[in-house]
Amino acid sequence: MNVISTALATAREDTHAFALANCLRGLAIDGVEAANSGHPGAPMGMAEAATALWMRHLKFDASSPDWPDRDRFVLSNGHGSMLLYALLHLSGYQDMPLEQLKNFRQWGAKTAGHPEYGHAKGIEVTTGPLGQGLASAVGMALAERKLNAEFGDDLVDHRTWVFAGDGCLMEGISQEAISLAGHLRLDRLTVLYDDNGISIDGPTSKAFTEDVTGRFEAAGWAVLSCDGHSVAQVDAAIAQAKGIDRPVLIRMRTVIGLGAPHKAGTAGVHGSPLGDAERAMAREALGLGPQDFSIPDDLLAEWRAAGIRAQADRIAWEGRLAASDKGGEFTRRMAGDLPAGFDAAVAAARQALFEAPQNVATRKASQLALAPLTAACPEMIGGSADLTGSNLTRVPAVDSDFQPGAYGGRYVSYGVREFGMAAAMNGIACHGGLIPYGGTFLVFSDYARNAIRLSALMGVGVVYVMTHDSIGLGEDGPTHQPVEHLAALRAMPNLNVMRPADAVEALECWEIALRARKTPSLLALSRQAVPQLRGAGEENLSAKGAYVIRDTDAPRDATILATGTEVAIAVDAAEALKAQGIHAAVVSMPCWELFEAQPAAYRAAVLGTAPRVAIEAAGTFGWTRYVATEEDVLGLRGFGASAPAERLYAEFGITAAGLIARVKHHLA
Amino acid sequence: MNVISTALATAREDTHAFALANCLRGLAIDGVEAANSGHPGAPMGMAEAATALWMRHLKFDASSPDWPDRDRFVLSNGHGSMLLYALLHLSGYQDMPLEQLKNFRQWGAKTAGHPEYGHAKGIEVTTGPLGQGLASAVGMALAERKLNAEFGDDLVDHRTWVFAGDGCLMEGISQEAISLAGHLRLDRLTVLYDDNGISIDGPTSKAFTEDVTGRFEAAGWAVLSCDGHSVAQVDAAIAQAKGIDRPVLIRMRTVIGLGAPHKAGTAGVHGSPLGDAERAMAREALGLGPQDFSIPDDLLAEWRAAGIRAQADRIAWEGRLAASDKGGEFTRRMAGDLPAGFDAAVAAARQALFEAPQNVATRKASQLALAPLTAACPEMIGGSADLTGSNLTRVPAVDSDFQPGAYGGRYVSYGVREFGMAAAMNGIACHGGLIPYGGTFLVFSDYARNAIRLSALMGVGVVYVMTHDSIGLGEDGPTHQPVEHLAALRAMPNLNVMRPADAVEALECWEIALRARKTPSLLALSRQAVPQLRGAGEENLSAKGAYVIRDTDAPRDATILATGTEVAIAVDAAEALKAQGIHAAVVSMPCWELFEAQPAAYRAAVLGTAPRVAIEAAGTFGWTRYVATEEDVLGLRGFGASAPAERLYAEFGITAAGLIARVKHHLA
Repeated sequence: MNVISTALATAREDTHAFALANCLRGLAIDGVEAANSGHPGAPMGMAEAATALWMRHLKFDASSPDWPDRDRFVLSNGHGSMLLYALLHLSGYQDMPLEQLKNFRQWGAKTAGHPEYGHAKGIEVTTGPLGQGLASAVGMALAERKLNAEFGDDLVDHRTWVFAGDGCLMEGISQEAISLAGHLRLDRLTVLYDDNGISIDGPTSKAFTEDVTGRFEAAGWAVLSCDGHSVAQVDAAIAQAKGIDRPVLIRMRTVIGLGAPHKAGTAGVHGSPLGDAERAMAREALGLGPQDFSIPDDLLAEWRAAGIRAQADRIAWEGRLAASDKGGEFTRRMAGDLPAGFDAAVAAARQALFEAPQNVATRKASQLALAPLTAACPEMIGGSADLTGSNLTRVPAVDSDFQPGAYGGRYVSYGVREFGMAAAMNGIACHGGLIPYGGTFLVFSDYARNAIRLSALMGVGVVYVMTHDSIGLGEDGPTHQPVEHLAALRAMPNLNVMRPADAVEALECWEIALRARKTPSLLALSRQAVPQLRGAGEENLSAKGAYVIRDTDAPRDATILATGTEVAIAVDAAEALKAQGIHAAVVSMPCWELFEAQPAAYRAAVLGTAPRVAIEAAGTFGWTRYVATEEDVLGLRGFGASAPAERLYAEFGITAAGLIARVKHHLA
Repeated sequence: MNVISTALATAREDTHAFALANCLRGLAIDGVEAANSGHPGAPMGMAEAATALWMRHLKFDASSPDWPDRDRFVLSNGHGSMLLYALLHLSGYQDMPLEQLKNFRQWGAKTAGHPEYGHAKGIEVTTGPLGQGLASAVGMALAERKLNAEFGDDLVDHRTWVFAGDGCLMEGISQEAISLAGHLRLDRLTVLYDDNGISIDGPTSKAFTEDVTGRFEAAGWAVLSCDGHSVAQVDAAIAQAKGIDRPVLIRMRTVIGLGAPHKAGTAGVHGSPLGDAERAMAREALGLGPQDFSIPDDLLAEWRAAGIRAQADRIAWEGRLAASDKGGEFTRRMAGDLPAGFDAAVAAARQALFEAPQNVATRKASQLALAPLTAACPEMIGGSADLTGSNLTRVPAVDSDFQPGAYGGRYVSYGVREFGMAAAMNGIACHGGLIPYGGTFLVFSDYARNAIRLSALMGVGVVYVMTHDSIGLGEDGPTHQPVEHLAALRAMPNLNVMRPADAVEALECWEIALRARKTPSLLALSRQAVPQLRGAGEENLSAKGAYVIRDTDAPRDATILATGTEVAIAVDAAEALKAQGIHAAVVSMPCWELFEAQPAAYRAAVLGTAPRVAIEAAGTFGWTRYVATEEDVLGLRGFGASAPAERLYAEFGITAAGLIARVKHHLA
């Protein structure tokens, strides 16, 4: 027998389980066929594994999909989305009627090409960009242990399950994730690896021949192996995994597209519909009958029953929640509401700045803001990608390490793993109950970029603390100096890119970031010190995105736009211009995205009608949104250089003198 | 004895070798102190390893630093740059007089904070962004084997050596790199790992506890261990590594900052100057005397002699080159000159398109261009991150796999490793003799972004083939649909972002990319088909960045700007407008960067003075460079969606009808 017939024989050892698995195969085949687009290979290859996990182990209640103590299921090989949609449908999720599966990959459907967080209950995180599901699952497992330490087994006691393929394991982020998970001994995390030997370009032997078992063991994981087409074997492996005090990889030998008579086991079944003839044969061979999307009633009933298998557990849990003295706090946390003391903490921090102005780097200002905010918000969990002393992300309230044996800790040492950190923070945010923030240098937003994108796409309020935000970092040189990063991040939808000018704006930006539970925020913060520019006043002006920070006492001759550390330079220039009888207003623009959301009249009033000049120690790209041409921007036209910051500002002409000259150019 | 005194005792076992190593320590300490900024810890911890490698093994000739058959040395932990500068200075590189070391991290110096490719000979690749040096070294080792297969042992027979620290190994890209190198059995690659147990945030036990040996062995590497402060042990390990038929990791136990009396072995010595007192004590203890930057004459002489150790080898090699019938081709290849047949190949491909127009996807057009160009240019080495059938990067001339035992192959299966692929291509380009191109989806430029940045920063002509360049990819949905990517890439200095409109532009863009040996190119290519718009004509119009592709026969009423697949839509709109008596010119803008480099008069003529409207199936950010407001851009205001492409274009209003309406809005 060849590998395919062996796999089929194995699957058929348990006729009934095979029939249950074939419900998944049938829906996946038909969904892809109806869309004439999609990936049947992974759902067909993982149908037995999904059956074993979902029918016998996964703790969830389809009738109450938001139950906070449910297990989390992450389909890291997100292209196999029809598997998830089929599972949700069969299990009885109200969000996922058959109609949705029939509209797979169509406009307005919940059944997007890859699982999209927020489209339907049961989609715990957006996946598709490979490796990130696994890395986000590490964040979920971390969140579970953190909340368990806070709220106890009665309220938090669940697991995170991941399906992953070769592609996930080839991506470097998977190594960051497994190394971190192994270090943290996240024993509630189990990855079921679809070891089918096939990737898009053909057999994995062309590019992926590493010893996966050895690799995971080296990262501190336990590795179990089984035949992925034996529900009994997968069941047993899962049961065994639950008893192991480390994260577990279950390495399942599978055949991609099993059930497709001719295409099983080939790259051809990975990402294309089977085609009419193959599909008809497959349905017939799998005992599904000729009717598209049809599922035998008895099997559907069995799937539906499994969907409410844990209902009694859920009801008991709700009783414990109601009885718990921590119930109110737990409910608040999971709802994503800020604590009662939040407003007062912000107001007090604000007042303190007005009483004792802080002329500090904005990274330091961020730390000053973090101190009271983390004290007020126990849901904040901090961290850094090994740059704590530079990012200044650690403050007294979170001065406790999240480590094995100390899962109550509030600070995560993510290691030099920016992408893994960002994806883990997405997982923490999707899990709920915590607000993750994490630091690195702004230039290394590049490393984490696609995870930042997923924060934005999902609409989760992760806070990125990105310091060393310009050539102002000085000597480290062009590899470490962001140039294009502000523009590249501003180009991203649904991300608030904030570059505060002083200590007051830094506090305001933190307030905005913490209130924005459906929008990620990225704080770009300086290494070098700036004066505190803002005087007393209760309004969070940064929340408008941009505002006049220094007005004129006569009609404006010019308007200077600036962000971050360059606002002080702009104010200096305006002072000097005033001495020469030229009236230039200065607009601080900490967040373009929030400014764009203001009423047109406000925007027009802030920007004014006088000639506008801008200054920002970054590439000029994008500033033409607010100025006539890039000639009007004092910024960088190329990469930075290695030298002390003051020298760099002078050499690149990002100076008050440069601003004055450009303003005068307009008035000449 | 504690670990530090043990390490010192080990180092002192060979007094003379220790003295040679201390020359490196002294220069590193003094350079960092003079700059009052930098990282003494790694140079001091790796001084013995560097001494063993550079004085006894590394094949190079400081008097002829461009010798193509030299070994390549990569300091992947680039923050330890003073180690490299010290090595170059001591070895006698003309580019690196003591004056440069004294100006470490100062404006205009070759001695930037991190090693910058092109600043001085001997800096083989820019490093600093962690993990990428190692990944680029994989590319260098790959290039060596490829050229060896072509030109034989007589001309190509060298090794690649990497110094790497914990940070490099924590970054996910290192896993992509070692997995690929292990798979390809690149036995000329040796990594010396500075296993000092310290990262910026403190002991690596906080975040990095994986079994590094097991991990590398799982990736198919051999692992040797030694005491990194014994020159004899490192020497022996290197000698052993040379005989192993796989890539080798030499795991060296070291003490960070060894030689700093109080700070050795702590995070405090990682990235800060020692300070006056500690420095004086260190110099004294290391036998360097009190004078800054001073090196005992006898030791300097010995280092200088080592710098020309391989001179005879180099001269013999030159003799073999002169005698070889492949010498001319080899010299051309290493000089980066295109082959004699290049122009003719382009012209013939051009003519073929005019004779038989191709209404195909621009990814297909790219493949049509690649066929003759790869045939004409044996230096082209292709590949894809496991999306060959989607990127269409494989054509007959490169239809041979680069695999162990087949290093003459011209196509690399990089696996699902976008970042590793990009960094490897940087290494291939820096090595010389080859032009690497590699494919993935445009959205996954995110994963590779910092390596693309290093291509641009270094000025190396890597070609990125990025297909599925818009919502036009359809059903895969928002995780796979680029939105902000064109803007984010256009924001990057020194990168030619090219989005051809049809088969002729695709050929032109490939021609530009191959001629641009000091600028990386990124081709954004469509999944969906477009008509061939261009008629016969010899000039490469894409080389101007933008040009009028459809002119008016009366004074312009409007100008429509478009790129890629939207140019055809713009032409349709112009036709429809013409029927209504409105004269709209259409400008195709395949490459903004090249357009910006044109004379002002040309730019003004192309853009015209009539109202301008733009269309691009991407985010609108950045278009205000050419249009008055983003309202004038038909593009995306948020993420895409999962649906067939035609539906998405219609739903997002990226249509001829939308263009017509916007043009009329201006004329109303």
